[in-house]
Amino acid sequence: MQFCMLTKRHIKDLESIVGPKRLSTGESNLELHAKDQSQHPGTRPEAVIWPGNRDDVSKILRYANKNVLPVTGWGSGTSLEGNPIPVRRGLVLDFSQMNRILDIREPDFQADVEPGVVYHDLNEKLRLRGLFFPPDPGAGATIGGMIANNASGTRTVRYGSTRANVLRLTVVLAGGEIMQIGSRASKSSSGYDLINLFVGSEGTLGIVVEATVRLRGVSEEFSAATATFTSVEMAGKAVFEIMRSGLDPASIELLSPECIALINKEKGLGLNVSPTLFIEFHGPTKKQLEDTMKIAHDICETMSCSEFRAGIDRKDRDDLLKARHELAEMIMRNHPGRSHIGIDVAVPISAYPEIISLARDESKNADIPGYTFGHAGDGNLHLVFMGKTGDRKEWSIIDEINQRIVTRALDLGGTATGEHGVGIGKRKFMQAEHGISLQWMKQIKDLFDPKGILNPGKIFP
Amino acid sequence: MQFCMLTKRHIKDLESIVGPKRLSTGESNLELHAKDQSQHPGTRPEAVIWPGNRDDVSKILRYANKNVLPVTGWGSGTSLEGNPIPVRRGLVLDFSQMNRILDIREPDFQADVEPGVVYHDLNEKLRLRGLFFPPDPGAGATIGGMIANNASGTRTVRYGSTRANVLRLTVVLAGGEIMQIGSRASKSSSGYDLINLFVGSEGTLGIVVEATVRLRGVSEEFSAATATFTSVEMAGKAVFEIMRSGLDPASIELLSPECIALINKEKGLGLNVSPTLFIEFHGPTKKQLEDTMKIAHDICETMSCSEFRAGIDRKDRDDLLKARHELAEMIMRNHPGRSHIGIDVAVPISAYPEIISLARDESKNADIPGYTFGHAGDGNLHLVFMGKTGDRKEWSIIDEINQRIVTRALDLGGTATGEHGVGIGKRKFMQAEHGISLQWMKQIKDLFDPKGILNPGKIFP
Repeated sequence: MQFCMLTKRHIKDLESIVGPKRLSTGESNLELHAKDQSQHPGTRPEAVIWPGNRDDVSKILRYANKNVLPVTGWGSGTSLEGNPIPVRRGLVLDFSQMNRILDIREPDFQADVEPGVVYHDLNEKLRLRGLFFPPDPGAGATIGGMIANNASGTRTVRYGSTRANVLRLTVVLAGGEIMQIGSRASKSSSGYDLINLFVGSEGTLGIVVEATVRLRGVSEEFSAATATFTSVEMAGKAVFEIMRSGLDPASIELLSPECIALINKEKGLGLNVSPTLFIEFHGPTKKQLEDTMKIAHDICETMSCSEFRAGIDRKDRDDLLKARHELAEMIMRNHPGRSHIGIDVAVPISAYPEIISLARDESKNADIPGYTFGHAGDGNLHLVFMGKTGDRKEWSIIDEINQRIVTRALDLGGTATGEHGVGIGKRKFMQAEHGISLQWMKQIKDLFDPKGILNPGKIFP
Repeated sequence: MQFCMLTKRHIKDLESIVGPKRLSTGESNLELHAKDQSQHPGTRPEAVIWPGNRDDVSKILRYANKNVLPVTGWGSGTSLEGNPIPVRRGLVLDFSQMNRILDIREPDFQADVEPGVVYHDLNEKLRLRGLFFPPDPGAGATIGGMIANNASGTRTVRYGSTRANVLRLTVVLAGGEIMQIGSRASKSSSGYDLINLFVGSEGTLGIVVEATVRLRGVSEEFSAATATFTSVEMAGKAVFEIMRSGLDPASIELLSPECIALINKEKGLGLNVSPTLFIEFHGPTKKQLEDTMKIAHDICETMSCSEFRAGIDRKDRDDLLKARHELAEMIMRNHPGRSHIGIDVAVPISAYPEIISLARDESKNADIPGYTFGHAGDGNLHLVFMGKTGDRKEWSIIDEINQRIVTRALDLGGTATGEHGVGIGKRKFMQAEHGISLQWMKQIKDLFDPKGILNPGKIFP
């Protein structure tokens, strides 16, 4: 599709829709919306608009559709695959001014939010009521961005990804039509599931302007431990046995020795520099959780766990999780002159040790700094490589490694992306992962967005 | 769409695809595939085919699509909204001969099955390995039927509906194309979620020929209790408080006094004839579960629970759940000369007491036998009315009551069907529930099945 360049006339028309204060073509604003936190090169949009409400979004999309202008939604730019980079320029809709928590219905474990609500802010508000919105991407993501990418994180093993925690959406379609989908019931067998079609569609089918999300009760107590192992394989086996036991961990994260060394250096946590599992349980009483942790301890012992540090208090738990969340930044900070690429495959849990070994071997053989870690309970592995910035040879090696790891993950029945989304970087794997179903996805895209104005250049190769 | 009548030529052609033994036009076979377990009148298909493998299904659909013959999938006919009744006649594909468990991958908590596998048979096989497939519709449903209707049941409050337990599907599309969707990874953000589009689509978008389902570990221990209350409202409030507590019940079922009386009569369980909750927890140790049940007990006490019977043993628990599963049959058996209609709304949990009250008042005011029960933890209410067979006046009253209850459920933010699916009976509510999104569902239907041969006459009004 040939898009139109933004003209002065377009800008004037759009300003008349949202008012001049809600639109900018200033260099700094364009630059701020050119790039997410991925390694993908930025592209400046032609204008940034901050919609104030759903009617703004509806009118903007109707106008953009008529005039064939690309429109890309923007949460907080924390995504990791170039998902909101406006590669075909046009308009970026920044939702930071649609950030109201509209309703918290405590008795229903539900909240209605606008897409620009920041995940942490929502949970801060909910904490006082003993509730939380579980998906935990670990970044300053907005709810809209989380829905677009089906974000997940350290709590997903127990509470599900964003997908499992969205009940109802109001979306604006390419032509400006405002559509409500889903219901407030916690389950339904009524018609086709459009909610899950829109969750994870990366803003390519429509733009979310309101969401009803599912909340969970903050458990009365928690219990956290670290377990260190002699090999990553044994740690992987312990993960399997813990999952199999039905103990239902709230987190089970794997950190490679390289990651531990970095966390020790930056945070002074004094952890053993060995393959490490961080394990957390949630439950109603301290006593119960001690019993549960005892079983986890026994499982780890049978896997030759070298140290099991239970009874981690709230401060240490928070420090550890914070360090885990900041890991990507730490890695970057510690390799000046290098750029990063993050691999995000997920595999069936039995294949987790194998994919970890492959990733570590590839990193070692290439002699390029690589860090493996991940949401082990979900079989989701991250591998962050730090290649010399601008070193074409090194980056072509990294590209080949990336290709091999993703291909292996797909061969093992897995997916090219567990939680970062397809964006720009994973498009090349879509044909291999989805086969002919990719053509059907494309037909659904064409059905909802015939002119292709919504976040063009993403998902499809 | 004008469908073709099945001719001798068609039959000959179809026999040449599957062999003469796999096709029948015999009266008894047509009659056996004319009706499910709902009140909806039956319609005989023109032929029944028992496909032996996916290639049979592909060839049949290609042929049916070319010749514009309706095709309706058939599991075991246990559905409750006329979902597999071949209202436009044509072909019924009975999957009872595609009933192989292809693989159980214990370490991945996954099984690959053909659609004709009966839910109970799968769980019987899995039990020996300490695993189970959680959705528990309570009938002799097949996995294919469960996927088509997004079935759920007594375990859904903890383990999710069928939707949450399907990872990968192989489907045959209307034109005969065989398409694989999803992956074996437990989570993914890779492209549009076609899995959830097909789950719950009632065989109108394609026909499932293989499924990879998610398994869970059978918990080491369980703890079950019944709690009786002075009013249904107080029982509803106890449900809310238990859900809010984060205790994570494996079942929380509500039974009205009428249901209890019937269960006592048929099963001699000697339960108090009062609003009753059946509560079950799963966990790793007996001690833990006793603590958990103690908290549930305390909650029920604050809601003026009149009796709390904990420590129910395995036999009594199984008897109770069996009675719960057989309830619909018991109701029918105890009202000879009457026919049933089952209401299946789900509402946000805070509205559960209100919708129960409405249902009970309607039943009482109309002086027609009515039984309320349901999956209380999910806000899913069943109301079974027994109207005099052939009594038009009584049935028009029941229709009006149905209309009022579903409309109220929708007004409360709920859904017309929590688990039975739309089938024939809920079509009339689809416009009210889904608004303009229903038109988008229809466009998706037209995209995948342009001639409308797949299970015509369902879902859409």
